Amino acid sequence: MSPTARHPRRDPLARAPDLAATVVIVGGGFAGLACAQALGRAGVDVLLIDRRNHNLFQPLLYQVATAAISPADISEPIRRTLARYRSIRVIMAEATGVEADARRLRLADGRAVIFDRLVLAPGSGYDYFGHDDWRAHAPGLKSVHEARLIRQRLLVAYERAAQVEDGELRRALLTTVIVGGGPTGVEMAGAVAELGRFLTARDFPMLYPDDLRVLLVEAGPRILAAFPEDLATHAAEALHDDRVEIWTGTRVTEIGPDHIVAGGRHVQAGCIVWAAGVKAAPVADWLGVTPGPGGRVAVDPDLSLPGRPEIYLLGDAALCMGADGRPLPALAQVARQQGAHLGRGLARQLKTGAPLQAFRYRNRGDTAVIGRGQAIFDWGRRRLTGRLAWLLWAIVHVALLVNFEKRALVSLQWAMRVATGQRSARLIDETGARSLPASTDDSETGADG
Amino acid sequence: MSPTARHPRRDPLARAPDLAATVVIVGGGFAGLACAQALGRAGVDVLLIDRRNHNLFQPLLYQVATAAISPADISEPIRRTLARYRSIRVIMAEATGVEADARRLRLADGRAVIFDRLVLAPGSGYDYFGHDDWRAHAPGLKSVHEARLIRQRLLVAYERAAQVEDGELRRALLTTVIVGGGPTGVEMAGAVAELGRFLTARDFPMLYPDDLRVLLVEAGPRILAAFPEDLATHAAEALHDDRVEIWTGTRVTEIGPDHIVAGGRHVQAGCIVWAAGVKAAPVADWLGVTPGPGGRVAVDPDLSLPGRPEIYLLGDAALCMGADGRPLPALAQVARQQGAHLGRGLARQLKTGAPLQAFRYRNRGDTAVIGRGQAIFDWGRRRLTGRLAWLLWAIVHVALLVNFEKRALVSLQWAMRVATGQRSARLIDETGARSLPASTDDSETGADG
Repeated sequence: MSPTARHPRRDPLARAPDLAATVVIVGGGFAGLACAQALGRAGVDVLLIDRRNHNLFQPLLYQVATAAISPADISEPIRRTLARYRSIRVIMAEATGVEADARRLRLADGRAVIFDRLVLAPGSGYDYFGHDDWRAHAPGLKSVHEARLIRQRLLVAYERAAQVEDGELRRALLTTVIVGGGPTGVEMAGAVAELGRFLTARDFPMLYPDDLRVLLVEAGPRILAAFPEDLATHAAEALHDDRVEIWTGTRVTEIGPDHIVAGGRHVQAGCIVWAAGVKAAPVADWLGVTPGPGGRVAVDPDLSLPGRPEIYLLGDAALCMGADGRPLPALAQVARQQGAHLGRGLARQLKTGAPLQAFRYRNRGDTAVIGRGQAIFDWGRRRLTGRLAWLLWAIVHVALLVNFEKRALVSLQWAMRVATGQRSARLIDETGARSLPASTDDSETGADG
Repeated sequence: MSPTARHPRRDPLARAPDLAATVVIVGGGFAGLACAQALGRAGVDVLLIDRRNHNLFQPLLYQVATAAISPADISEPIRRTLARYRSIRVIMAEATGVEADARRLRLADGRAVIFDRLVLAPGSGYDYFGHDDWRAHAPGLKSVHEARLIRQRLLVAYERAAQVEDGELRRALLTTVIVGGGPTGVEMAGAVAELGRFLTARDFPMLYPDDLRVLLVEAGPRILAAFPEDLATHAAEALHDDRVEIWTGTRVTEIGPDHIVAGGRHVQAGCIVWAAGVKAAPVADWLGVTPGPGGRVAVDPDLSLPGRPEIYLLGDAALCMGADGRPLPALAQVARQQGAHLGRGLARQLKTGAPLQAFRYRNRGDTAVIGRGQAIFDWGRRRLTGRLAWLLWAIVHVALLVNFEKRALVSLQWAMRVATGQRSARLIDETGARSLPASTDDSETGADG
């Protein structure tokens, strides 16, 4: 939003003097935080900027979307994580551009931040392939706001389905379509199927499992393209056992408030989730460079911008080559390792002048979960499926949560769920009944999920 | 919202046949739920209607508003609570009127519900004394939505204050005004002061306690008018120790997005909370009767509507006389006891024809908490203040939470808070940075808190 829309003469932020720091980090996600922590330990002067006040553990957002846990359980205030480092300042603001020669980062409110080194780790969002109007109908899973919106739509669909006589409309309401067959889409599909089993068994006895439908649509030849084929096949079989339908080689051509069109077929749906097409934050625009695939910006092996040794990119926004000559995937563990590596390297360089080392990624295994109790785990030669894989996934994900209290909260809720079968967060905000429209258009409920 | 605005020809709900039940209950709060549970145990055919899908433990909402716990921790899906009773149906809908002669309850979507007995327990909302425009600037504490909005405003105010140079603006942002000196207002004032101490100590070291201001404005001669004077004095002293300013005998005459005017004085504020003027849901309109004070409708001692022995009112919406000849207060425990009493009485009457008995309230003690570790407890002759009162309050409130899991969740978070001083739910949704406007007008963030 431009400053003029906010009365610059009245806006004190616009009048504030420029900020400055030795290292400026844009983004408090996995990469940015890891980098800041490494620099903080070395007492380097850091200013970290994020649009939000919290670090979000995105891998578990699908559990917020299916009412199993609360948003705060997987969100951690950035200030809390970095409070122990006296040399680190944090501000909640939005970056909009970089003037590399002047070593200035521009913010949305018109202020500038002067840097000695600039670390860009703004992450990624969903790409709707030019159809930005689809966004309102098909939220993604990269923010608390969207996860709550999806949760709202799912729960309201059940409430409405419980009151309609028309079987066709009831089944339409209880149809969920997930677009995109990567790990996020697969996890969401399994979770929605699980939620449906739970709700029909417990809260909505008047609805039957036969009325439910979960459809996963993937444009490519198979789901989980980044996983070995046998693991992907195992996952597909597990989903089929959960009564999830999978359409591969099928592209979505239309999305409306209550339907999609894919492969020429029209499907009515009570809830649509977007898990396809990820693209980087517009760092390429900020830097005035040409982006690679997905909007990612190519970096040298030491993670710096070619020709600009004082500017670095990390995480999803960076196109970084792996040992096999292919780009590293946009995964949490890649981002975290890059952040830690760069943070340590910069601390050393600022202190001793030693040049930065090339980054080398150590793959500790990729996981994808398919409903409760099932997962796949890929670690090169070692692979695991089934309950043991799920247990490993659970342990890893809980361990990755940022502190003890969150781990305890999430573990307690998972334990209760295993023990009682209950789900902790089946909350529709009080706009609920008023948002029971003829269609599933949620424009009435505004931005609240 | 009128059905015509939602295309009645397309709206399947409008075409659905009328619903019917022996006992229809409007409201799934303390009173409605207790009544339903008693009837359910007796196998009576019940239809419970609520605008939301959850029962909300309102007494702890101020903790959601000050980022100490999450909304789902104090919300329980109504369906879950009533699932065990096979004779009870639940629908999420909104009541709009009663045709007493025809024994029909009208719903917002045009449908009707036919009842043999009708129990109205719709609760209450805030009364802005004709100034409905104040609502947007000063949310109350009766819904998850409002509590989240208050939390958002508080946290965003701190984020902004951390970035402004102007001391006057900084102090304005860090000023919180609470309107209304009853238990809710007092609890909120203490909690905001506590939040401020926490945030300045931990997350915002660049802000100082001297910059914070919490102002409690009460129109009457003293705060906590419903409590004995000595207890109220004790509470006021505790608030003063927390640096909360109290203005009594002062009426608010104006509320804007970033200020109030009270007692002729203009106060700039980053967050304004409304805790004054409670009024019943419009049951009087539904029934076509003249309401008493606060919109409450007078009932006979057996809780039935005078002249209408098949219609009953419970909770905040009912004006019910106590043993001392004065109306019973609008408290959770009154509502709960009434609900249980009526439920049992109706079950007996439906089975044996026995007439309903008069309701007699048993006061088990009123509590109000003032910040962490301090509370007052009034039980007629017995009174308690200080830490022991707080402990009692905590035990009672945790026990009142509806099931084990919620008790465990809230207890865990409180225990962590005592142990580590951390607060679990300091979450600003990602609209955060974009909602840093020149004023504190949150119209950009829409309905989301």
